[in-house]
Formats: sequence, C-alpha cells, structure tokens
Amino acid sequence: MAANKPINAFYAQSGGVTAVINTSACGVIETARRASQKNPQSIGKVFAGRNGIIGALAEDLIDTSLESDEDIARLRHTPGGAFGSCRYKLKSLEEHRAQYERLIDVFRAHDIGYFFYNGGGDSMDTAWKVSQLSEKLGYPLVCVGIPKTVDNDLPHTDTCPGFGSVAKYVATSMREAGYDVASMAKTSTKIFVLEVMGRHAGWITAACGLASEAEGEPPHILLLPEIPFDEARFLARVADCVKRYDYCTIAVSEGLHDAAGNFISDMGGKDAFGHAQLGGVGQIVAQLIKDRLGYKYHWALADYLQRSARHIASKTDTDQAYALGQAAVELALAGRNAVMPGIVRLADAPYRWEIGVADLKDIANIERKMPRDFISDDGFQITKKCRDYLAPLIEGEDYPPYRGGLPDYIRLKNISIPQKLAAFKA
Amino acid sequence: MAANKPINAFYAQSGGVTAVINTSACGVIETARRASQKNPQSIGKVFAGRNGIIGALAEDLIDTSLESDEDIARLRHTPGGAFGSCRYKLKSLEEHRAQYERLIDVFRAHDIGYFFYNGGGDSMDTAWKVSQLSEKLGYPLVCVGIPKTVDNDLPHTDTCPGFGSVAKYVATSMREAGYDVASMAKTSTKIFVLEVMGRHAGWITAACGLASEAEGEPPHILLLPEIPFDEARFLARVADCVKRYDYCTIAVSEGLHDAAGNFISDMGGKDAFGHAQLGGVGQIVAQLIKDRLGYKYHWALADYLQRSARHIASKTDTDQAYALGQAAVELALAGRNAVMPGIVRLADAPYRWEIGVADLKDIANIERKMPRDFISDDGFQITKKCRDYLAPLIEGEDYPPYRGGLPDYIRLKNISIPQKLAAFKA
Repeated sequence: MAANKPINAFYAQSGGVTAVINTSACGVIETARRASQKNPQSIGKVFAGRNGIIGALAEDLIDTSLESDEDIARLRHTPGGAFGSCRYKLKSLEEHRAQYERLIDVFRAHDIGYFFYNGGGDSMDTAWKVSQLSEKLGYPLVCVGIPKTVDNDLPHTDTCPGFGSVAKYVATSMREAGYDVASMAKTSTKIFVLEVMGRHAGWITAACGLASEAEGEPPHILLLPEIPFDEARFLARVADCVKRYDYCTIAVSEGLHDAAGNFISDMGGKDAFGHAQLGGVGQIVAQLIKDRLGYKYHWALADYLQRSARHIASKTDTDQAYALGQAAVELALAGRNAVMPGIVRLADAPYRWEIGVADLKDIANIERKMPRDFISDDGFQITKKCRDYLAPLIEGEDYPPYRGGLPDYIRLKNISIPQKLAAFKA
Repeated sequence: MAANKPINAFYAQSGGVTAVINTSACGVIETARRASQKNPQSIGKVFAGRNGIIGALAEDLIDTSLESDEDIARLRHTPGGAFGSCRYKLKSLEEHRAQYERLIDVFRAHDIGYFFYNGGGDSMDTAWKVSQLSEKLGYPLVCVGIPKTVDNDLPHTDTCPGFGSVAKYVATSMREAGYDVASMAKTSTKIFVLEVMGRHAGWITAACGLASEAEGEPPHILLLPEIPFDEARFLARVADCVKRYDYCTIAVSEGLHDAAGNFISDMGGKDAFGHAQLGGVGQIVAQLIKDRLGYKYHWALADYLQRSARHIASKTDTDQAYALGQAAVELALAGRNAVMPGIVRLADAPYRWEIGVADLKDIANIERKMPRDFISDDGFQITKKCRDYLAPLIEGEDYPPYRGGLPDYIRLKNISIPQKLAAFKA
C-alpha cells in the first residue's frame, strides 16, 4: 500500500435486500466520513461494490465520496440495496482460490484495507474466508461483517437488521386484514390467509402473532415451518375458530412442510403451462379449507412488499441497523479483524441493548432456529416467551419523508472509479 | 312517530370495507352528537345495523350512544367496518317489496327517521328505492347515501372515500418493491408483478403508476382491465424493458382480460384439487414471462392488505371520508331526501375541493370508467392527465396512533337495543 495515503474501504451488500440495509450503509459511510474529517490518515474513501461482491471481482467499484452528505443521509430511510446486491456465494478456498486472490488483487490496486460485508450467514462465511486468505498472502486487510437478514437466523446477535421491520409490517398487515375480514364474515369471506417469508425458520410467521393481544383476535392460526403440517388437526382448528368467532385468519410460512419434509408449496398442482407450481402455499391452504369446509376465502402474498416496506420500518430496527454500520467502522479502525458487531439484549421491557462483538468464525453457516418453547404446545400460536422476545423489535416508528404523497427515497449517482487491472475470468 | 321524541338515525355499512369507511361513520356519529347537544330535538340516537342492512332486516340495531366519545373518535383511524358490513343487495321493489316494507316497519318501531347508507353503487340504488317506498307508504324518512368504494367508480363525485388510501398504498408498495428488485436484478429476480384490485375499472392499477416519476422508474408496465391483454405485445415490452433497465416491474389488475372478454385469471389452469384456479392473474402473467423469456420472477398479491392499510392512509382520503359523513347528517337535518354528498374538485394543484350534492337516482348503478385519455396510446402507462387527477388523492399522511409497535385500533362494544318486532322471514 502506498505510504502516506489513507487506507480506503470496500463495502458490499449481499443476498436479499431489506428495508434497512441502506441504513447500515449510511452508518458505514457517515462514520467513515466523520473519522476522516477528524483524522484524514485514519480512513480514505469508501468504495461500494456494484451488485455486491461481484463488483469487487469485476473491479467495478462505486466511489461513494462523489455522493453529497445530504444524499448519503437519505440512504438511512431508503429501502432496497443502493449499490446493488447479489446472490453469489464464493465457494471454498480450495475450489475457488483464484476468486479470493482476485479480491485481494483488486483491494491492493485500490489501496483498500477495510472490507465490510453486509449480509447473512453465507456472507459472514465469505468475509471470514477472505480474512484468512489475506493473512496467508500477507496482505493487510481488516474484514468486518455487518449482519443483515429478514430471516433473523444469525447466531450471536439478539436480532438481525431487517427482521424487526418485516415483523412490524406483517403484524400490522395481519391486524388490519383481520379487521377487514371480521366485517365481512357474516355474508362473505370467512377465511383470510397471509403468506409470509421464512423458508427454514418461522420468525416472520411468529411475528404475525404479535397482532393478537387477546383470545380470539387475529391471527387465529400460525402455520410455522418448525411444526409439520397436519391437515386434519389444522382443519379441525379452522372449523372450531369459525364456530367461535365466525371467521378465521391464518399466517403461513412459505416453508411450511409435512412430516416427511415435503414443502406444501410443491403440492399445489400444475400451472397453466403444466409446470409444478412453486410458491403459493397460502392459496393451497386456503383452497383446502374451501374444499373441505366450504368457506369463502381471500389470501395475500406479501412477497417483496414485506422486506421493502420502509414506510412502516421499526425504529428499533433502523436504530440498530445504523449502529451496526457505525460499529463496523469503529471496529475496523481499531484493527479488529474477522469480527461481526451484533446486538446484545440487556433487558426485555423496557428494551435495552448494546453492541457486542462476535468472531466471524463462530457465525459462519450456523442458523439460529426458533426455540420450541417459543411455540405453543398445539403448534398454532406463539408463547409469552416468544412475545417478550419479539415485542421490542417492532417498537417505534421511523417514517421516511414524503413528497407528493409518496415516500421520498434516494437513487444515488453510483459512479465507478477507473479500473486498473485486466479483466478477470472466474 | 311519538310526539316530542327526537328522531333517531340508522346507519349501515355496505359491501367491501375500506381503510376509511369508519372515518365516515365517525363523521356521522360525531356530527349527530354535536347536533343533539346543541338541540336535543334535532336528532336522537344513531343506531347502526349489525352487519349492514341485514341488521335492519333482522332488527339487530347497535346502540352507538353506549360508546364513549373517546371510542367513537378512535373510529376515525380504524380500518374495516366497525359494525360489520355485508354483501347483500336488496332486489327490486316488485320482487322483494316485503323486505323494503320490513325496513320501514323496523324504522317505525324505533323512531328512525334518518337513513344513512354507506356504500357503493348498489347501496345508493337501495337507498334510493327505500326513499321511494317511504314516500309511497307515507312514512317520513330522509335517506342519504354516503359514498364508499375502493373501486372509485361512483359518478357525480370527484373520488370515492377508500380509493385514495388504496392508491397511496399500492403506489408506495410498488415504489418500494421496485427499489428491491432493482438491487437484485443482476444475479437474481428480474421481474416483479404486483396484482391489485379493480375487477372492472383500472383506477387502482393506474394509481400504481404514480410511483414512477421519470422514464425507467417502476412500475414499467401497467396491465389495465380497460386494455385487452395482448400476449405478444406485452412480452415484447417486457423484453425491451429488461434490455434497457435490467429488470421489469408490472402492476396488473385482477380484472385483466383478453379481447374476447375472458378473464386472464380464469386461464390459470387447475389447482391441486382439479378446480379452475380463480385469482392469481399476477402469477399467471409472471409465469408467462418465465416460460417465454426465461427471467426469474417474484409476485405479490396485495388483496385485503391494500384496502385495510389504514397505517398508510391518505390524508386527503380521511379528510373527505369524515367530511362526507358529516355532510350526510347536515343534509338529513336540513330535510334533503334521496341525495348523496360527493366531492367537487375546484382545482388540481394545489388541490381544492368542496362538498357537492347529487341525487341518488342519478348515482344508482352507473359505473364511472377510466377515460381513454387517462391511458397512454400503447396502453401500458398513465397519461399526465391521469396523473394530475390522481396525485392529490394520495396527498398527505394521516398516521394512526401506535401502541406496542402496532397501530392502536378500536373494537367497539356494539350492544344491540331490545327488539320490538316479531322475527322476519325474508
């Protein structure tokens, strides 16, 4: 690295984006700018990978220093991934050593000594591998992971940025749709099904349960991926619910499966073109009720709306997303390599938290499941313990600014720096 | 009617509910309370039909005077229909004269001289018929309709309460999902489809178009029910869009149909149980793209979420919903029979409006369609004229209060008054 030049940073977004991943990006960039203003030698520019780590491999680096302070501040309330993300997992060092070496080459060419990787479990694994290789190659690099996943499945952090806002969105939507169905049940729709994300873990489905504060309030049934789907038991519960309340509202995880592990979504028959229908477990479950019990249904598929709903983000979530971006830079400047800042819960109510630090090697590829005691014995509801855990994560509103009746989000200029290396063939 | 007793009012909610139909109810009840406080002879109690007009036929009348002022005030920000609604259309006077006479019997038994019917075109028709019969039977009744429909298809009003909030929700959701897809397009999802309501008119689909403020911004394609679906033209447009922007976002009306008038949703093949699949035109369109062009897709079905999303209601919409409830009572107290208050637009920007009055006979069963010059020549976008019409309707935020991270909505006590009549067999 050239002497007397401050060390630059590389930041990349990875995997499915969220309503608050840009909030972490804002935390990274603003903290780096503050540090640089205080001491120009501490940190140089922050380059962002265009479309995530692919941008590093392709030497397509966005110069965030060309964005105004005002525009970077607006990142804080803008959903999606401002620099582009990617679903691209670097393989093992043995299989794809050339890719890792390419990363180091690109970092070396642009005086990059800080590597911030904002993603889920796979990304923490990649960041850890990069940290190991840089040591082996004798290239000084400080690698810091920044947690992000709506799935809430990273270990060693109380929660993951992105989850709290999805949780607030689905619980609010469930409550609102519940008021709607209750009004219509006498002569029309008696069943409402909301399908939500979470292929392997039921955190988002569980969060729907927060909408209910008393016996009989929607949602009446949660179908979690942790509990194998039992058609007879489910239908009996629906019938009982309609008998008691005249309607029944259900939140179902896209990952619902039977006792043999088959996804219910794969059982949906064929579409117009003869293909097996993927997705749509919400409709399958609703249609099952119609066929067996005869009730009229409606169903909704939140899909990307749930993870991009910045308009109803949780304040807890945005605060934590920013704080983790900030902490990542502070850790890097302190020379802490191969770590990930996380959230440590100090108290449930009122919720108090602080930033902790975990080693990347302890994060990589470990999925945090919902504890069984977060789910009621019958499998259809969440327990008080689960509620106590989830409740603070949706606390607080953090509305974006509006213009013309719509949230006023930012699109950055995203200008790349000149390339210095030959093209790379993976 | 007993002498010296103030005249009571009957209020009923009808058809699909909205995020703001309770706002109109709040306007009715609060205005009646204020009038009664000023002059106890002017108006008595407001009774609400449990589950709409069915409550009148069944003599199941909710006594709203048993609800506190505070709880009635909370109706203003509570979605759904607080007293229950119904999909039940009274037939013609000739066919079902007994039902109309029953209504008059119930009104007579409970000293009801004001009839407020809060609904869409069918309900305005019913209110008009009731007004005619009461004259024939010599029972003094003042019938006032209060417009409500997310479909925005009533004539003689600039817009219908409920529509502006759906419009704000779908445009916001489209914008947010657009930011998400744009981030993912490089290596993953290139196509996003949002299916919205509007079986016969494309107002809600058109509102999605507000999310786009410049060439290339989502949504890239609107599929309106006014424009017959042309598969080849559509696929060519999608391919062109992906070529230009690397992704394509689409809003589609549930009522999309082909040139022969067949709903595209009916072409979706069979479900797991061999039934024709209803709904899901969003998935059909997305799957078509996947099959013909090979792009990975996501799709969302907003369903009831869109019409119950009080958390992102339009301030214009809530102001108008309340004002129309208030105007209905003022018109009734002034003895104006067989009318409906509506919104008269005075100016686009800044938007100015006032309350107008239309005759129920001019409203009944007339659907207001989108004008052709609101749709671009190619049929895939809205025009500036449409944008100028729609923009003010989503202006302003009117957030509900939150408690524990969720909107704090009210469930009323809804206590019925004692019945006086024998049961009625329809």
